[in-house]
Amino acid sequence: MPANTADHEIFEAGDLDLQSGETLRGAKLAYKTYGQLNAGKDNVVVFPTFFGGRHTQNEGMIGEGRALDPDRYFIIVPNLFGNGVSSSPSNATPPHNRARFPGVSLYDNVACQHRLVTEVFGIDKIALVTGWSMGAQQTYQWGALYPDMVERIVPVCGSAKTSRHNFVFLEGVKAAITADSDWAGGSYEKPPLTGLRAMGRVYAGWAVSQAFYREEVYLGLGYASLEDYLVNFWEARRTSADANDLLLMIWTWQNADISGNHVYGGDFGKALGAIKAKAIVMPGRTDLYFPPEDNEIEVAQMPNAELRPIESIWGHLAGGPGFNPVDSKFVDDALKEILAS
Amino acid sequence: MPANTADHEIFEAGDLDLQSGETLRGAKLAYKTYGQLNAGKDNVVVFPTFFGGRHTQNEGMIGEGRALDPDRYFIIVPNLFGNGVSSSPSNATPPHNRARFPGVSLYDNVACQHRLVTEVFGIDKIALVTGWSMGAQQTYQWGALYPDMVERIVPVCGSAKTSRHNFVFLEGVKAAITADSDWAGGSYEKPPLTGLRAMGRVYAGWAVSQAFYREEVYLGLGYASLEDYLVNFWEARRTSADANDLLLMIWTWQNADISGNHVYGGDFGKALGAIKAKAIVMPGRTDLYFPPEDNEIEVAQMPNAELRPIESIWGHLAGGPGFNPVDSKFVDDALKEILAS
Repeated sequence: MPANTADHEIFEAGDLDLQSGETLRGAKLAYKTYGQLNAGKDNVVVFPTFFGGRHTQNEGMIGEGRALDPDRYFIIVPNLFGNGVSSSPSNATPPHNRARFPGVSLYDNVACQHRLVTEVFGIDKIALVTGWSMGAQQTYQWGALYPDMVERIVPVCGSAKTSRHNFVFLEGVKAAITADSDWAGGSYEKPPLTGLRAMGRVYAGWAVSQAFYREEVYLGLGYASLEDYLVNFWEARRTSADANDLLLMIWTWQNADISGNHVYGGDFGKALGAIKAKAIVMPGRTDLYFPPEDNEIEVAQMPNAELRPIESIWGHLAGGPGFNPVDSKFVDDALKEILAS
Repeated sequence: MPANTADHEIFEAGDLDLQSGETLRGAKLAYKTYGQLNAGKDNVVVFPTFFGGRHTQNEGMIGEGRALDPDRYFIIVPNLFGNGVSSSPSNATPPHNRARFPGVSLYDNVACQHRLVTEVFGIDKIALVTGWSMGAQQTYQWGALYPDMVERIVPVCGSAKTSRHNFVFLEGVKAAITADSDWAGGSYEKPPLTGLRAMGRVYAGWAVSQAFYREEVYLGLGYASLEDYLVNFWEARRTSADANDLLLMIWTWQNADISGNHVYGGDFGKALGAIKAKAIVMPGRTDLYFPPEDNEIEVAQMPNAELRPIESIWGHLAGGPGFNPVDSKFVDDALKEILAS
């Protein structure tokens, strides 16, 4: 078993035949573990990353006294393909780098994570899968693909299938990046900074709520003004990423559907109905692109699920790992409750 | 009095000293009238245009049997500066054309419309001011600037002051247009079509609700698919406009504040409190950038106002003149009711 000494470990997954029909050669799944796998191998939590996030950005929910306590649980954080740590357009070698990187689906991600969990660690039961945003989408996919293995799920601010509105929101995000001619169809030498900054400004309106701005919450976070928040949070967040990486993850996100695979053949109700895991589904009350209504529709088709909205004006960011202490505690309490059950 | 034979009339307003400190030379306020001004001059309705709209696009609410019946009312539709019909970056002459066009505020627009109404028509009472979106913002401004003149107002899906969130939404829209290097700081020879298309895609997620897409309302409007709707409604709507015109109107919108003038000196509560007109304020229940909460806060500070949300999944477009027959009838009924009072 790999020791947890480096920043992260790499699972060499080999050549992956993807749903897109393409092949991801020499796939590297980066992951980090926290805590120790116990003898019974029954203390496992899988906690996938979110759009643009890396394993370190999940650490706001991991620690002593928290639900995800490394003294008790063995927490595996797999990095989403495209996030710049696992195989991604920005770190792949020619001819599969940059815009030539193959489309990797939600299913492809989770199937590879399953190989990590089983092949590397020999695990056959998972106490909990949880994640935020695209991490929630991976959580749903785990529950639907491996119903006999996953005992509990807590998807936070995410859906089992990307809604049409969410897809359209992402069309705007994509269009903002790619409107910059420096993007050059993905073959840029210098980053398309104008497009990335535009993406940051487009995102800023979506990711938090109207009330977040009405009440000037950003001032309490150390930003001097609205413009300072837009530049130093949103633009900085996007310009520090690679455009092709972001576009690959957006592709994964736009096509996310837990039933879009050979197991369920597009039967969304069947995929939801197959999730045996006990579930607490946690939308943000004011989330503008993963609105609570989508989760409500899903929960009605899941055999063992409860809808528990996060009552917050932080919009989609309400569920961000450690982003807002009050909301993070609300999620942490739910994780403790479900782990104790 | 100008006859209503042409598509529209022009009020030559001369040189306007603007709030921005700039001067709009040879200002042309385009307008169209419907119906006849009666002898008592007490049958006047002012119905300003919306963002990107022209007088013809207000006609969905004007006609026999409707509240705005030209057989009964004299309806004046003034075109917003920047809309391509009134003075705009796209029709001004050097050196004030294109990106050099001066910033024109909400106040500047309404003050000039007031001159049209008084100087050209000798009107001193207005039975009703109504408008949608930026038309609603002009409606509020009319009520606050001319409280003894305006008897009734019905602002539809708009606010008396652009909220911070709405401002941020528009930052994303602006960033999408200007990310296209063809925009060239506004000095383009060929239109920045990539940026305008990007703007269309960004707008598409904001202007209607999550449920509008969930229920695939666009299919019932004659679009073959989601992509068809994005291209043939949203992209087409934006690529047919001039980028500098859109940016000028966005400037007006972002800075809209009925109290941002010498009369109220930024005291928003005072400006709202000064609106003597009987008011029915009509937000769209699912409007994402003019949410009902902003209107609720305003109505609480207005002496004679009722909040009456449009219960619709059409989002901001619920209030669009004639856009959705059911919602348009709901607005029309409110207009009839208030005009009868």
